[in-house]
Amino acid sequence: MLSLTTRRLLAFCGVTLVCTTSALAQSKPGALTAADSDPVTLGWMNGFPPSPDKLIMQPDSNFFSFPKMRWSVCHLRELLPTEQVSRGLGAPIPLEYALDGSIDAVSFLPIGSDSAITWEASLAKNYTDGILIMHKGKVVYEYYSGCLSDAGKHAAMSMTKSATGLLAEILVAEGALDDTARVSDIIPELSSSAFGSASVRQVMDMVTGLAYSENYADPKADIWAYSAAASPLPKPKNYTGPVGYFEYLQTVKPDGEHGDAFHYKTINTDTLGWIISRVTGQEITELLSERIWSRMGAEQDAYMTVDAKGVPFSGGGLSAGLRDMARFGQLVLNKGMINGKRLFPKAVIEHIQQGGDKAAFEKAGYQYLPGGSYRSMWWVFHNAHGAFAARGVHGQTVYVDPTAEMVIVRFASHPNAGNAAIDPTSLPAYQAVAEHLLKK
Amino acid sequence: MLSLTTRRLLAFCGVTLVCTTSALAQSKPGALTAADSDPVTLGWMNGFPPSPDKLIMQPDSNFFSFPKMRWSVCHLRELLPTEQVSRGLGAPIPLEYALDGSIDAVSFLPIGSDSAITWEASLAKNYTDGILIMHKGKVVYEYYSGCLSDAGKHAAMSMTKSATGLLAEILVAEGALDDTARVSDIIPELSSSAFGSASVRQVMDMVTGLAYSENYADPKADIWAYSAAASPLPKPKNYTGPVGYFEYLQTVKPDGEHGDAFHYKTINTDTLGWIISRVTGQEITELLSERIWSRMGAEQDAYMTVDAKGVPFSGGGLSAGLRDMARFGQLVLNKGMINGKRLFPKAVIEHIQQGGDKAAFEKAGYQYLPGGSYRSMWWVFHNAHGAFAARGVHGQTVYVDPTAEMVIVRFASHPNAGNAAIDPTSLPAYQAVAEHLLKK
Repeated sequence: MLSLTTRRLLAFCGVTLVCTTSALAQSKPGALTAADSDPVTLGWMNGFPPSPDKLIMQPDSNFFSFPKMRWSVCHLRELLPTEQVSRGLGAPIPLEYALDGSIDAVSFLPIGSDSAITWEASLAKNYTDGILIMHKGKVVYEYYSGCLSDAGKHAAMSMTKSATGLLAEILVAEGALDDTARVSDIIPELSSSAFGSASVRQVMDMVTGLAYSENYADPKADIWAYSAAASPLPKPKNYTGPVGYFEYLQTVKPDGEHGDAFHYKTINTDTLGWIISRVTGQEITELLSERIWSRMGAEQDAYMTVDAKGVPFSGGGLSAGLRDMARFGQLVLNKGMINGKRLFPKAVIEHIQQGGDKAAFEKAGYQYLPGGSYRSMWWVFHNAHGAFAARGVHGQTVYVDPTAEMVIVRFASHPNAGNAAIDPTSLPAYQAVAEHLLKK
Repeated sequence: MLSLTTRRLLAFCGVTLVCTTSALAQSKPGALTAADSDPVTLGWMNGFPPSPDKLIMQPDSNFFSFPKMRWSVCHLRELLPTEQVSRGLGAPIPLEYALDGSIDAVSFLPIGSDSAITWEASLAKNYTDGILIMHKGKVVYEYYSGCLSDAGKHAAMSMTKSATGLLAEILVAEGALDDTARVSDIIPELSSSAFGSASVRQVMDMVTGLAYSENYADPKADIWAYSAAASPLPKPKNYTGPVGYFEYLQTVKPDGEHGDAFHYKTINTDTLGWIISRVTGQEITELLSERIWSRMGAEQDAYMTVDAKGVPFSGGGLSAGLRDMARFGQLVLNKGMINGKRLFPKAVIEHIQQGGDKAAFEKAGYQYLPGGSYRSMWWVFHNAHGAFAARGVHGQTVYVDPTAEMVIVRFASHPNAGNAAIDPTSLPAYQAVAEHLLKK
């Protein structure tokens, strides 16, 4: 049996699709292996109609609990209202291929282990649904499993934040957004919330002081009020709380000084999404399409979940195809260039690569990210290769290694939300593949 | 003030997106003109956040009531869960253009009127959101208004039925579906429902005898139980009725003889969708993508709304781009050929063109469709040009005129659901344009 805490937490992840990394690092892995929890094998939603034990429905069946979640990550739009992130109407620009069959045999030592495993073996270990490696602009490795195929889309979870952060950095570079401005100067409605006195930059780097508890064991934790506000499902009749992201954000109280420490709290990204929309007059979905998705040769539309008022979930709502996420990663690696076109100034990426405040980051105590930092909703490793990444719960990543000219995009449905359970068998794997590619 | 009946009816349309033609023909037009009800001008969902009077939300704001509906027809996925109808991953095949500026001045006599109006004037009169005319395979006219642009998608409403019917005819032609079979032989779960004793063909042509009342004034009418079952929103706690299309269809009681008369009842199409899925093992969305959308050079994915169990709404759930609906119409005009490829045997369309049982159709009393018939979810006019059409409430149509080698696709958001309010200013307009094009 799952504990009450775990059940509440899974219910929460299901409604809002947020499970922040640090809070979930300690959750226990499910008993089933990747093979035993394969959603195709388990037959979720199979048949006309599916048998009752194979149904995944709102709101009863806790669609984001493991192993159901392994189906749901590819089917969010079938459970929730969404907005399109259009790829435009033109022809996609196909990725170039130079497949490298020897990657499967690349071996590495998982963190904390003294026996090496192969890249190939790591895929099932990490409940990988899809992984694609770009090297020097070409696809060298591509793999699909579980619910995902090349024509499918997968939840990007908190990698959404990095897309939102990238858009913000673009606006800063263009002078459309002043990252030194106070949030309340842009959004007066946030004047009496904790966000009001923060700078845009503090929000972008998540160094805000917010009384926002993600203690899932506490039934009065703020996360439950956020979850209730964010859900697109009709509210219970007796509900009197905030409706939607924007109303919720106005209720957040301060705790501590802005700028003091990194606190990974999704509500920062929702505030950043609001700032971007207020400044541009566009929804995040529209802007992401206009600036990125419709200009990078994408082969599929992406989409974002929305709240009951149609506000896209800037902190975690994106779903996209694996190859399109690879195009996104390649665009970042190339500092704004793709298919011979420049989409934004290279300073945008250079600013992210510099990283954020390492001292502030250290206070958050990420075991597997020593010496790291967080900048504009991107995780910066400050390692020898200058790697940085978009990361989302349950194993989502866009890992960018400029030294190896490599991008790794992974979609996954690991039973553990927190990447701390997944990093030991993935971060060293990425480094090993980078070394392998550097020798070519 | 709207009457209680009208308000209930609009609420119903909003939840299930079905408003059958005959039942709604008598509803009154709204007071606002197309210009005065333009959703962009009215500013629905405009701003971050929209002001409360500009919000369109589930379930309170009755999103399918006029004039809100003029926004909602382009935004259903933002209000409801949906499934993709994939266009595939390849390059779209652009339509060829040969625009004919003289079409705007084509004039015609509306039915029941003695003063002619122009094609151009008819567009606003019919609350047209988008209209595209193909002639000899080329676009001769293209127009967008209201909520629609070339990159947008619009509710196809009951034109969805014609896509479902086309898929069924393809399966019949291939021998995968026997249209003489009893429904209960394919779906044993329907044995004790009225559908069980009908033939597949009777379902396809809507000549079933079903105790299914669409009397909106009667709070016990079957339409309300259908609406409740079909809604993807969580059911009220005390709800004990059927959940989803499939469960509802099992409850339908007989009334009259199958084969006796045409009765336009959406539940026939939902049954046909079930039959198709049972026979093929595929969802309607998958099959529509595999057979049509991914093979006709579509430039956008389409999508379908789903019930709470993820079953696509075969009777009315499709949304698509205007140009893609034109491709669909052109494929039908060309009897299965498009872009030099054959997607299905020409007998499929020839069978539809022959039409259904005229005597059975006449009993339904369609004022503006004298001598017509209904075949495989298509309306057959049996006029001098051999025209036939997909039609949906609020003015949706794919009008195919083989003699003029013409396809007209219209998306609209007329305040009246029933096409009887719209036919007088559209059917003669289509015929006038056909005559115009025949002279070229």
